[in-house]
Amino acid sequence: MDCALGIDIGGTNTVFGLVDRNGSVLVKRSILTMSQNPVKELLDRLFFDVSVWESEMNDGVKLAGIGIGVPNGNYHTGMINPNPPNLGTYWDSLDLVNTIKDYRDLPVIVTNDANAAAIGEMYFGAAKRIRDFVVITLGTGLGSGIVVNGNVLYGHDGSAGELGHIVIEKNGRMCECGKSGCLEMYVSSKGLDLTVKEFKARYPDDTFLYNLPDKKVDGKEMDDAFDRGEERAREIYNYIGGILGIGLAQAATILSPEAFIFYGGISNAGDRLLKPALASMNENLLSQQKGKITLKLSGLPDGEAGILGATSLIWDNVRD
Amino acid sequence: MDCALGIDIGGTNTVFGLVDRNGSVLVKRSILTMSQNPVKELLDRLFFDVSVWESEMNDGVKLAGIGIGVPNGNYHTGMINPNPPNLGTYWDSLDLVNTIKDYRDLPVIVTNDANAAAIGEMYFGAAKRIRDFVVITLGTGLGSGIVVNGNVLYGHDGSAGELGHIVIEKNGRMCECGKSGCLEMYVSSKGLDLTVKEFKARYPDDTFLYNLPDKKVDGKEMDDAFDRGEERAREIYNYIGGILGIGLAQAATILSPEAFIFYGGISNAGDRLLKPALASMNENLLSQQKGKITLKLSGLPDGEAGILGATSLIWDNVRD
Repeated sequence: MDCALGIDIGGTNTVFGLVDRNGSVLVKRSILTMSQNPVKELLDRLFFDVSVWESEMNDGVKLAGIGIGVPNGNYHTGMINPNPPNLGTYWDSLDLVNTIKDYRDLPVIVTNDANAAAIGEMYFGAAKRIRDFVVITLGTGLGSGIVVNGNVLYGHDGSAGELGHIVIEKNGRMCECGKSGCLEMYVSSKGLDLTVKEFKARYPDDTFLYNLPDKKVDGKEMDDAFDRGEERAREIYNYIGGILGIGLAQAATILSPEAFIFYGGISNAGDRLLKPALASMNENLLSQQKGKITLKLSGLPDGEAGILGATSLIWDNVRD
Repeated sequence: MDCALGIDIGGTNTVFGLVDRNGSVLVKRSILTMSQNPVKELLDRLFFDVSVWESEMNDGVKLAGIGIGVPNGNYHTGMINPNPPNLGTYWDSLDLVNTIKDYRDLPVIVTNDANAAAIGEMYFGAAKRIRDFVVITLGTGLGSGIVVNGNVLYGHDGSAGELGHIVIEKNGRMCECGKSGCLEMYVSSKGLDLTVKEFKARYPDDTFLYNLPDKKVDGKEMDDAFDRGEERAREIYNYIGGILGIGLAQAATILSPEAFIFYGGISNAGDRLLKPALASMNENLLSQQKGKITLKLSGLPDGEAGILGATSLIWDNVRD
């Protein structure tokens, strides 16, 4: 059976799967990226699994190509743009297309992970009937895939859509990109860690905060605390949502999308995060835009927007 | 002879002219907008001149339509979006298409003034071979027309491209749009007035500053002062350019255009403004974008990008 391999590489997890032409995910798996290790180490594990799938599938698998969404992935060059903030140095300026071709000599298309998710949402998810929208991936960092009039906005050099790196707080938190105050230093897994750290310093006697870890704060734990009325958990989501809303308003002032669609780990917080974000966004919009832009969650199962979008690029290309 | 009427309405001046299908401006004129007065007052003056042109042109004029660029102009609705910061209350939510049809019953297309300028630059000016760029109009306010892959970015509701209203300074200068710290409160004619005012307060003994007016500071006078080495004039352009660069970097992080093209009054400052803006933009970009985005001036005579772009919309429409 004809299918494509979709790979969605994140700072923490890599999701990959086989997808047929209709967008059915035949099989998928999530593994740790361990991005500080050589890239080959991840790809060896990943293609080992793919080989197992190939040998196990009853009908036999004919891979038409490999589509990859990855932070800093450049659609035009097939490379990783320099200095990817959420991947280790082994990924810096990597020629990913040719690295992958060492494993399978097939058509390989690389794009930014958020662009892949945007294409997945447009074809199969929450953006099916929307022509102007932005997908925001909330994982280790914050990525964005922008769709304008039904087409992904790549920019002249393929590096558009870095919404995680618009500056929200002048002289704010230092970002690995070299700037400070970037949106993703507040709204992402690492942003959550830093916020919890700040709150711990501000409320040294708070038991709830005291019991949270210093790194990799669990979003689920935050959600549960929010739901049982833990005041600090609510404050933290209000704070993060407020900053997210400012960032969305900045983007909307330029792009005027119909919707922002949220995808990835932290987005599981749902309205706990999106309600304060919506209020803050509307507060910071021009009057003609207030109340007209929707915030919604991915319309696809966890991790699937990325691999669906990445494989769509293969089908679009194979069709051409 | 077939021609279209192009109108470029600004907060201070309105430029209008007759343009043929090849983009030749047959005749044009600039009049004061006097936007605090009823809109009819401007249109009466404007169409009086058009009637005179029609009667005077040797070959006779056949108007194919009227294209209009105007701040807050909405391509989709033909209306002025609510609360236009640089036009008076008579313009608020005006149905401009139907207002114009009282003067001439012809096809009328309305768009944002900066979008019109962007189309003009793309067809006839500095963006002829560029598919991803942003035109920045520096007049009373700061407008922007964004072109993505050869198409104007309108957004889902026609109100995209309000780069003048991204927030650069939290709790900064109050903007007429209701927000504070908007880019156009620093980089525009009114921004220049406010900067001069601040500098006067900071340097009460400075003769050069003392002799500048409190309102409508003349850009030409600033340029001359800069050229003869007046320290405060240099400081002022460095300050404004620095802020402009921060705004450009925010936009480029989202859009990754090949160039920003400057048009309108304050852009006559040229490198006096664009040099510090370029340095500041590069300082605030992600490493993969540094040094790759050009700042340049309009490739068209003063005021023509707007009317050329506005009339192009008519030809595109008539052709369809």
